[in-house]
Amino acid sequence: MAEHEIRKIAIVGVGLLGGSAALAAKAHNPRVKVAGVGRRQVSLDAALAAGAIDSAHFDAAEAVRDADLVILATPVGAFKNHLEAMTPALPAEAIVTDVGSTKAGVVRTGQRILGRGGQFVGSHPMAGSEFKGVAYSRADLFAGATCIVTPTTDTPEDLVGRVERFWQTLGMRTVRMTPTAHDRAIGRVSHLPHALASLLMLLPSTADLGVSATGFRDATRLAGGDPEMWRDIFLTNRVAVLGAIEKFSHSLVELRDLIDRGDADGIEALLTKAKTRRDSTIARLLQDRRISAE
Amino acid sequence: MAEHEIRKIAIVGVGLLGGSAALAAKAHNPRVKVAGVGRRQVSLDAALAAGAIDSAHFDAAEAVRDADLVILATPVGAFKNHLEAMTPALPAEAIVTDVGSTKAGVVRTGQRILGRGGQFVGSHPMAGSEFKGVAYSRADLFAGATCIVTPTTDTPEDLVGRVERFWQTLGMRTVRMTPTAHDRAIGRVSHLPHALASLLMLLPSTADLGVSATGFRDATRLAGGDPEMWRDIFLTNRVAVLGAIEKFSHSLVELRDLIDRGDADGIEALLTKAKTRRDSTIARLLQDRRISAE
Repeated sequence: MAEHEIRKIAIVGVGLLGGSAALAAKAHNPRVKVAGVGRRQVSLDAALAAGAIDSAHFDAAEAVRDADLVILATPVGAFKNHLEAMTPALPAEAIVTDVGSTKAGVVRTGQRILGRGGQFVGSHPMAGSEFKGVAYSRADLFAGATCIVTPTTDTPEDLVGRVERFWQTLGMRTVRMTPTAHDRAIGRVSHLPHALASLLMLLPSTADLGVSATGFRDATRLAGGDPEMWRDIFLTNRVAVLGAIEKFSHSLVELRDLIDRGDADGIEALLTKAKTRRDSTIARLLQDRRISAE
Repeated sequence: MAEHEIRKIAIVGVGLLGGSAALAAKAHNPRVKVAGVGRRQVSLDAALAAGAIDSAHFDAAEAVRDADLVILATPVGAFKNHLEAMTPALPAEAIVTDVGSTKAGVVRTGQRILGRGGQFVGSHPMAGSEFKGVAYSRADLFAGATCIVTPTTDTPEDLVGRVERFWQTLGMRTVRMTPTAHDRAIGRVSHLPHALASLLMLLPSTADLGVSATGFRDATRLAGGDPEMWRDIFLTNRVAVLGAIEKFSHSLVELRDLIDRGDADGIEALLTKAKTRRDSTIARLLQDRRISAE
């Protein structure tokens, strides 16, 4: 047996991400056993039926016994209770990570409960879809996508490496950032776009929607996300999201003024700058690798 | 020959839309001749090489002789000069339409130059892509998409019907709106989303962009549009765009306040409203028919 081979994984929250992590880990190593934790029998039954988990539990403490790796995959707001519940039963050698979209608060909570130099290493695998639930789980959901791993200066290097290698075996590219840098970056490239998509979806009248095209469909795609999950994201990444909204509002006022003044050159310069930036970054970046929603 | 059969079309501006209209009209009726008007020899040569046009002209007056249908397909800002140039040579039976994304100003200009009860009928075929130029033209670009036709109370009914039938022969579904209703609706479902996409593209740092995912890619797709065309759209639909920005800014302030106050229920209610609306409209609408960008 290789050192630190993962034989048992406990996954707390068997939805799209938890279920997909389970299926991907089993696809990589069929001997891996997965203990799933859920709130509702129907979700746990669905996860068992999908072959994602081998045992079903309501109690995280029960599931983490003998686990090498614990993955928190519920909405971020529920992490604290699960961490507190599992602590007494958690093996000393187990690593705990998560799939949450915000990191500063999560890592703070993880280190407070499990110790500063302890077993918690934050992760943000950037994969998903607007669909929710274990029924949409796929073993290849993470393949080709990016996972941001967010150690602090207190996190032991070997634990960070083990978490990175876990996501890499699922086909992900890993990137390290501090929790704060992660939250600021993701506030700008993910959370703000989600907020704008939801507001945009509410603006037109029903008649207006009848003449909407693929531009509107794509611009509002993120509004199809799970409201409960996104509520938690906005609340746990409050500072960075408010900062991004503030910055965006300023730029919206600037564009408004350009249009109001009829400043043709100013408008064209702004649009050209945005197009050039997109053509030379996003459009190119995303040719090289598949990166999923989130 | 059927009454009002279209034998010759003059297309002013042989880019993506003009070229595609030419190819689609020829696919529907191979006997149709198309005269193309352009500013640059290289564009006209490309349109000839693509088989989109049969004759190439720098002068609109030259191209519209004997035409049954004239389609303005340059950026909207150039319509006035072309209309003035072609008027002396325009056959009395010819209909003039356009493919512009704004309608109140265009229809006003068209009726001022060609007469209030005259030959101008505004159209907005909602098809396109972020690619520009006749090289991307396709005979099926319009198939399955929506064309908004914008008569005024002065526009003769038979001319409106003939324009609608033309777009229908290209595979489009047609919808009638007044020019003002069109501009307000499209300001909300197309022009505002475009403005937001461009501003969103300029917000993150280069490092932030390195961890962007498909959510950001989709949310900024519209920022890849042609800056010159979109500058004209914002300027010609100034009032409706400013109104949409104003309304959007208010809703952004509301969301900002909900997040600032940590109002979990308020945030979830807003996100749920947006998701429900999207799931029951856009997601469903766009299953039924293919609608292209813009």
